[in-house]
Amino acid sequence: MPAEQGLDELNTTLLADDFRDSLPLPLAPRLDPHFEAALRHVLENPGSLVRPRMVLQMATAYGLEAARANQLAIALEYFHTASLIFDDLPCMDDASHRRGAPCVHVAFGETGAILSALALINRAYALTWQALADCPRQTQPQVMAYLEERLGVEGLLNGQSLDLHYATLPHDRETTERIAQGKTVSLIRLTLVLPAKLAGAPARELQLLERIAVCWGLGYQIVDDLKDVLQSMAETGKSVARDVLLDRPNMATAIGVEGAVERLHQLIRVGDLTLRRLLVRRPGLAFLGTLRNDLQDELNRVTENACEMTARLQA
Amino acid sequence: MPAEQGLDELNTTLLADDFRDSLPLPLAPRLDPHFEAALRHVLENPGSLVRPRMVLQMATAYGLEAARANQLAIALEYFHTASLIFDDLPCMDDASHRRGAPCVHVAFGETGAILSALALINRAYALTWQALADCPRQTQPQVMAYLEERLGVEGLLNGQSLDLHYATLPHDRETTERIAQGKTVSLIRLTLVLPAKLAGAPARELQLLERIAVCWGLGYQIVDDLKDVLQSMAETGKSVARDVLLDRPNMATAIGVEGAVERLHQLIRVGDLTLRRLLVRRPGLAFLGTLRNDLQDELNRVTENACEMTARLQA
Repeated sequence: MPAEQGLDELNTTLLADDFRDSLPLPLAPRLDPHFEAALRHVLENPGSLVRPRMVLQMATAYGLEAARANQLAIALEYFHTASLIFDDLPCMDDASHRRGAPCVHVAFGETGAILSALALINRAYALTWQALADCPRQTQPQVMAYLEERLGVEGLLNGQSLDLHYATLPHDRETTERIAQGKTVSLIRLTLVLPAKLAGAPARELQLLERIAVCWGLGYQIVDDLKDVLQSMAETGKSVARDVLLDRPNMATAIGVEGAVERLHQLIRVGDLTLRRLLVRRPGLAFLGTLRNDLQDELNRVTENACEMTARLQA
Repeated sequence: MPAEQGLDELNTTLLADDFRDSLPLPLAPRLDPHFEAALRHVLENPGSLVRPRMVLQMATAYGLEAARANQLAIALEYFHTASLIFDDLPCMDDASHRRGAPCVHVAFGETGAILSALALINRAYALTWQALADCPRQTQPQVMAYLEERLGVEGLLNGQSLDLHYATLPHDRETTERIAQGKTVSLIRLTLVLPAKLAGAPARELQLLERIAVCWGLGYQIVDDLKDVLQSMAETGKSVARDVLLDRPNMATAIGVEGAVERLHQLIRVGDLTLRRLLVRRPGLAFLGTLRNDLQDELNRVTENACEMTARLQA
């Protein structure tokens, strides 16, 4: 095992502990046992922790104090987890499983799910506040305003609402990307930009980070969309995606597989140019290259599959 | 119309404007029209605004800057409104009307309700942050920790969870008050204590305010409980309350009408002693006497009704 990977695994284990322990639960009778059980279920299923790991790497590159970085990392993962709990509810995506376990509302009822998600949000704001406590006075309102925008009416929440009402919207590139901007890109922007903002990064670097987050965020969403289409083709032998049947936003069905692949190429290209400029200013961010390469690998795999699938359908 | 009342009405109108305008809505296409409609419905039905009016009065008594007081007042009302939207959902109280209009989930679906409530919460944290921005450094974490406790796992959320699972709990005074402490008292404590904390009130005054908030918060809950029982008696001619039929927490059914009236007397007495001590230190808080007298008036009315009802049932 390379030393790098060992370190990353260790970080993930530590983060899983922090994910569990950063919302301390008093025992019953102080806490309603139903509520306690739902919260424990959430805290003991942390998922892959991609975002908080990235926060820690960003923080290292910018020399942000470890304790602050950790608070911010867990805060963002709590916001993310809460959004997933809401998304999974019967009135939204009506999902049954999440992070390898039954969804909270399946195991503990909708009430347990909603109250747990609200507990995560309440704690996440408190952790963000703690992370901000020693910041320069002028940084605090900037960070707060940025968090509010990404999570709020024009960010994550609007993305979710557009996503759920996609059937009533034009099925074009613009709309599909607007939904991804809200639902997917909002949290990626927070993950990359917030640690840098907190550490007082120069405005130009923040701009470049924003652009990278948008390119890669939209890029990863297109990969997911393409996978959905190609998987459906493989299963059914027809080029009808699951997202089409459910009328879900999907770039590959909105503008076709070829168009989506071309858009992904373009996003990676713009991302590359931006990353190059950023690394000249901040060489410590070289780890971002891994994210970029993962995206390229996904694109290559998807393109291979698409060619194979098209050949098979034409045969 | 006495000048005082005129002023209060004017304050209410201004607060209703602020309630509507403190969450600025961009128009479609930037905002999903479904989401926008649900949010507008919430913002245009502000309710009685008792809590924010009290925040403004507290702020005046402590000399807190008007702009800060206003941000805090609207923030607390947004938190309160969000909690009502969640409470009203089919999986919780399954209510149909609120503030003289259909509930958000009735008019705009559960998704519209949940996303609107989350938008209010997101904005409320941002407003609280703005209210805190110029506070002394040592005050900020105290205010934040207090807000987190009242709204979080051991506060409002636990109260709501206990309330919904009352059927599985002991139906005694202790449990009934624990639920009221979470569901009702949490926000009253925030309303009275937070403006004082923000203005840097001395610890002793904060203690006294805490005690008053608990006495009156529990007191108003008992009044509600008694009204429920007496109304049911009047309607059915039997002493079976609606709360009993629905198995909802109610002090008058947990320990009897007489016991509840006695407990309310006791709470008013402790509140009076506490208020007297507080007014010696801070005469500007004399307006709190009105709240106290309203509670006493409610008690008198309820007692009269109870005597009448008992006589009628015995006849």
